Amino acid sequence: MDHSELLTKRRAVRDYEEKEVPLDILMQVINESCLAPSSSNRQPWHFIIINNKDVIKRLSDESKRNLLLDLESNPASPSSNYEAILRDKHFNVFYNAPCLVFIVGPKELLSLQVDCALAACYFMFSACARGLGTCWIGLGRFIKDPEILKLIGMPDDHQIVAPIVIGYPKDIPDVPDRMGPQILNIVS
Amino acid sequence: MDHSELLTKRRAVRDYEEKEVPLDILMQVINESCLAPSSSNRQPWHFIIINNKDVIKRLSDESKRNLLLDLESNPASPSSNYEAILRDKHFNVFYNAPCLVFIVGPKELLSLQVDCALAACYFMFSACARGLGTCWIGLGRFIKDPEILKLIGMPDDHQIVAPIVIGYPKDIPDVPDRMGPQILNIVS
Repeated sequence: MDHSELLTKRRAVRDYEEKEVPLDILMQVINESCLAPSSSNRQPWHFIIINNKDVIKRLSDESKRNLLLDLESNPASPSSNYEAILRDKHFNVFYNAPCLVFIVGPKELLSLQVDCALAACYFMFSACARGLGTCWIGLGRFIKDPEILKLIGMPDDHQIVAPIVIGYPKDIPDVPDRMGPQILNIVS
Repeated sequence: MDHSELLTKRRAVRDYEEKEVPLDILMQVINESCLAPSSSNRQPWHFIIINNKDVIKRLSDESKRNLLLDLESNPASPSSNYEAILRDKHFNVFYNAPCLVFIVGPKELLSLQVDCALAACYFMFSACARGLGTCWIGLGRFIKDPEILKLIGMPDDHQIVAPIVIGYPKDIPDVPDRMGPQILNIVS
């Protein structure tokens, strides 16, 4: 897959085959993710792999619960756009994907968001090149229950930056509309 | 360039030929950057292109000045590792590259850091596939002087997320050491 195929074919996939992602292939994807650049080459990313559908469902319920609690105290929260689906008990924020990977890192690191986003970008490309679909699930990072955090092996001083589902796509959506590039200025 | 070439060949380039990046090629790179995914498909990224070496030098001096001021009030700041080069008046944080692109967006947007980091990742791959080198300059985003901000056309309610230099590489460095992937847990 050449570069422009890769950049255009990487799509947010929300519909997956009932087929596991072999661990060796997932490890290839994670290895390639670690080629991402990071601030001062710190490589602060850590990975938690969850390929148990019951645990993924529990994580979905926990994240939805916390988003709805937040909405009660802050009705203008950006997640208000998602209130209807958050209240739908059949809706799984992880789209019933067979595998979920959390890219996490130390809370106190200033560059953590961008470092982990770069690793996530490599992850999505590497998966795409192997015929796998991914989707970064912004609604899936609100995990607070200490019991669940312990179950998934999340260190206390870490936070989830990128929850990414991965699996074999049943359906690959078209490119959603893109605005033209917004160039504010060219200083020559 | 196939996907694994792209992922391994994208290097942080800090040494550039004295050769301009044609604007049409830069626009191809920016167009491809806009294929990045973003939270709720908001595409909040805006681009400022600076291909004037005097302005780039002024931006370097301004960013260094603010980093040094910050170091005075906060000696434990992460930029303390860079104090010697920041005090070197010949050091240009943008490595005398012929072109600098700021990826910027609205300050108040919660997902701004990760959205712009994803666009930056696409930018770096797209440039690499065209034989161009890039480097995300973490030390280059501390621009506060209202006169300079006005000169480059930065909106008041926006912030710089990713300052990226781009040009034809004189020297492509080897891959710096990478740690093996840090897998915290596999929940099966």
